[in-house]
Amino acid sequence: MPEAHLLLIGSELTQGRLADKNGVFLARELSALGFTVAEIVMVPDDRAALRAQFQRALASSAQAILSCGGLGHTSDDLTAEVWAEVLGDRLEVSPVVLEHLRAQLAGRGVAVLPFLERYALAPARGMALLNPVGLSPALYWDLEGRIVAALPGPPLELQAIWRAHVQPRLLARFPLRPPFQATLRTTGISESRLSSLIAEWEKALPSAFRLAYNPSWEGVSLHLRAPAEADATAFAQAVQSLRQLIQKYLYAEGDTTLAEALLSYLKERQMTLATAESCTGGHVAAALVDVPGASEVFLGSVVAYANSTKVALLGVSEATLAQEGAVSATVAQQMAEGVRKALGSTIGIATTGIAGPTGGTAEKPVGTVWFGIATPQRTWTKRFVFPGDRGAVLARATGAALSLTWQALHGLLE
Amino acid sequence: MPEAHLLLIGSELTQGRLADKNGVFLARELSALGFTVAEIVMVPDDRAALRAQFQRALASSAQAILSCGGLGHTSDDLTAEVWAEVLGDRLEVSPVVLEHLRAQLAGRGVAVLPFLERYALAPARGMALLNPVGLSPALYWDLEGRIVAALPGPPLELQAIWRAHVQPRLLARFPLRPPFQATLRTTGISESRLSSLIAEWEKALPSAFRLAYNPSWEGVSLHLRAPAEADATAFAQAVQSLRQLIQKYLYAEGDTTLAEALLSYLKERQMTLATAESCTGGHVAAALVDVPGASEVFLGSVVAYANSTKVALLGVSEATLAQEGAVSATVAQQMAEGVRKALGSTIGIATTGIAGPTGGTAEKPVGTVWFGIATPQRTWTKRFVFPGDRGAVLARATGAALSLTWQALHGLLE
Repeated sequence: MPEAHLLLIGSELTQGRLADKNGVFLARELSALGFTVAEIVMVPDDRAALRAQFQRALASSAQAILSCGGLGHTSDDLTAEVWAEVLGDRLEVSPVVLEHLRAQLAGRGVAVLPFLERYALAPARGMALLNPVGLSPALYWDLEGRIVAALPGPPLELQAIWRAHVQPRLLARFPLRPPFQATLRTTGISESRLSSLIAEWEKALPSAFRLAYNPSWEGVSLHLRAPAEADATAFAQAVQSLRQLIQKYLYAEGDTTLAEALLSYLKERQMTLATAESCTGGHVAAALVDVPGASEVFLGSVVAYANSTKVALLGVSEATLAQEGAVSATVAQQMAEGVRKALGSTIGIATTGIAGPTGGTAEKPVGTVWFGIATPQRTWTKRFVFPGDRGAVLARATGAALSLTWQALHGLLE
Repeated sequence: MPEAHLLLIGSELTQGRLADKNGVFLARELSALGFTVAEIVMVPDDRAALRAQFQRALASSAQAILSCGGLGHTSDDLTAEVWAEVLGDRLEVSPVVLEHLRAQLAGRGVAVLPFLERYALAPARGMALLNPVGLSPALYWDLEGRIVAALPGPPLELQAIWRAHVQPRLLARFPLRPPFQATLRTTGISESRLSSLIAEWEKALPSAFRLAYNPSWEGVSLHLRAPAEADATAFAQAVQSLRQLIQKYLYAEGDTTLAEALLSYLKERQMTLATAESCTGGHVAAALVDVPGASEVFLGSVVAYANSTKVALLGVSEATLAQEGAVSATVAQQMAEGVRKALGSTIGIATTGIAGPTGGTAEKPVGTVWFGIATPQRTWTKRFVFPGDRGAVLARATGAALSLTWQALHGLLE
């Protein structure tokens, strides 16, 4: 497999002021094409550091060297200059690129910017790849044995240039053979139980096959990967056997999220969904709404953070609140049933708990969350005590709410 | 400033199956202590690659070398072994660590695990630092002129070990002088207007001072940084002048988010808040609920994705929906006023729009969002057309809802 080397440029990365999005995107794309990403390195906006890292990348065995960032017009933006220097090339204003940029700005009704020529610089022995969604083009060199590409840092621009220009060029340039990959997504089973369930199958895998467990708050995904040289039939059979072993917990394959799987399951059956959220405060609704087309199934949510809202909009009993407290099985049940009624949905999901950092008691410590899942047939309630800080409790509770709903609909809940 | 070199270990990173959290955390922490993070490198779970990268780190001028990940008990976990090899050390089962792990498991009511000895390995010439929240200790070497630490990959464990053991040791070990840093957070002003507003001030900055713009959907933050050797008075004066220039748009300093600033502003005035969300589907509520103590101000939300919910729970007029459509100024206004009434809050925030990818028209393209902000005095409505995909529209609309509310409360909305 050809190797790729990624350079993520910016002091905002090495000072921890910005979390990387470009490295993870390109690593995933390059791996799927059939590259081995040998290294991803983050480098500050510093001329000597860039020079050293660019030279190191050129001295490596990587056939594709991609840098991200440092292509703007401020004094921090050194990427183009330093690449030209280490490659022994020079940058010149390209009349074609300049004309394109002027037309692009005119189309948006923007006056010509003073620093526009900076964005029209193209390498004499390489080329500029036009940016479909922003100003800064990518710079691209096709050298003996390898390509070097400098992509802009804003993720939307980087992704647009990758899809429009870089990916097609890499496909044409290298004899790529994508690896075999399959992702099987489960919910309602712990990593250790899953591991026992498939232990025999895992032992029998050919040695070139690699299995990875990817746990998340929504469940555990299994990622099986084999090199392009592997036997296609053996790979397909391994996936099929795995599928059968974990069928009961398998909600989707590939990139589908649990929210997507849940919404399509309900859509096929012409069922609708609503949530009543106390501690999760809209996070479950937000996870559902992130799915395109959610409106066909998801009717809405009552985020009932205050007890008065639980009573007024969800019909929770004041007596129950007084006797059992807001964080209780009965309130979770009344909220789930109440939101079904208030919004007229087939299914109601409720959460009520203590996300912390304060509000915990000996009996109901921080992290305690009651869930209610109401269907036309019955209502289930479940309690969990999640570890971690407020953010972790909210994220775990959101994943658990979706998981419990999927489990209830698939006969996995007692 | 002493230098740090970070190694993030795991094929899940170089294959793009997991986004980094540890690098950004440690980079931020180390920078704040007074280290320069010279490089952050992601490396696959491969013995030769680890060996080469560890040796390269040891050959660099870094005084602190920290690796994250690869300390588990599976065959992929090579970090401890390879560090011992390149440092010419050996690993031995530490009876003290083993006893601690047994006690830890017993405390959780878990039987002793077969692979427990793997976690009790300590370097003969270094030490194991106990993990406050998980099994895997960190390994730590204090060598001539530098320290090497191998931290576990799960972010909560890494952060706990960092705080309990590594940070205090670094502070004691190196003569650290933290840089001067200030973050001033604005909203309601664009990056280019902000840049013009402070152009003169920026020109007059001492050359060692660095200003960074960090735009987000909530606003633009300014990050001013100067090395420890800079003049403290000059730094304080620069921050004070900047503060005065941007006072009108300054919602907070430091790490405070816009949601936090908004909630504390309202809390001080004993005001409460509720949201009525159509297109944002709970994202605004979720952003508010992420703030500890939100319940003192935030009463809840009606996520009215379906028109029937807008009518039933928010009192939106069916005639308005029929005449102007759900994505209109009047519906945004009725939603904001409706949720104030339904939940009895001082302030109501409403969103209604088209997040896409479908549902757009020539008149109301994908990305069109109407906002309503209702206070006891009046209701404002504003329209934006946001670029980008569904995720981008939802994120931008959530930021804008918070920003518009802050602006309305501070006299910045017409």
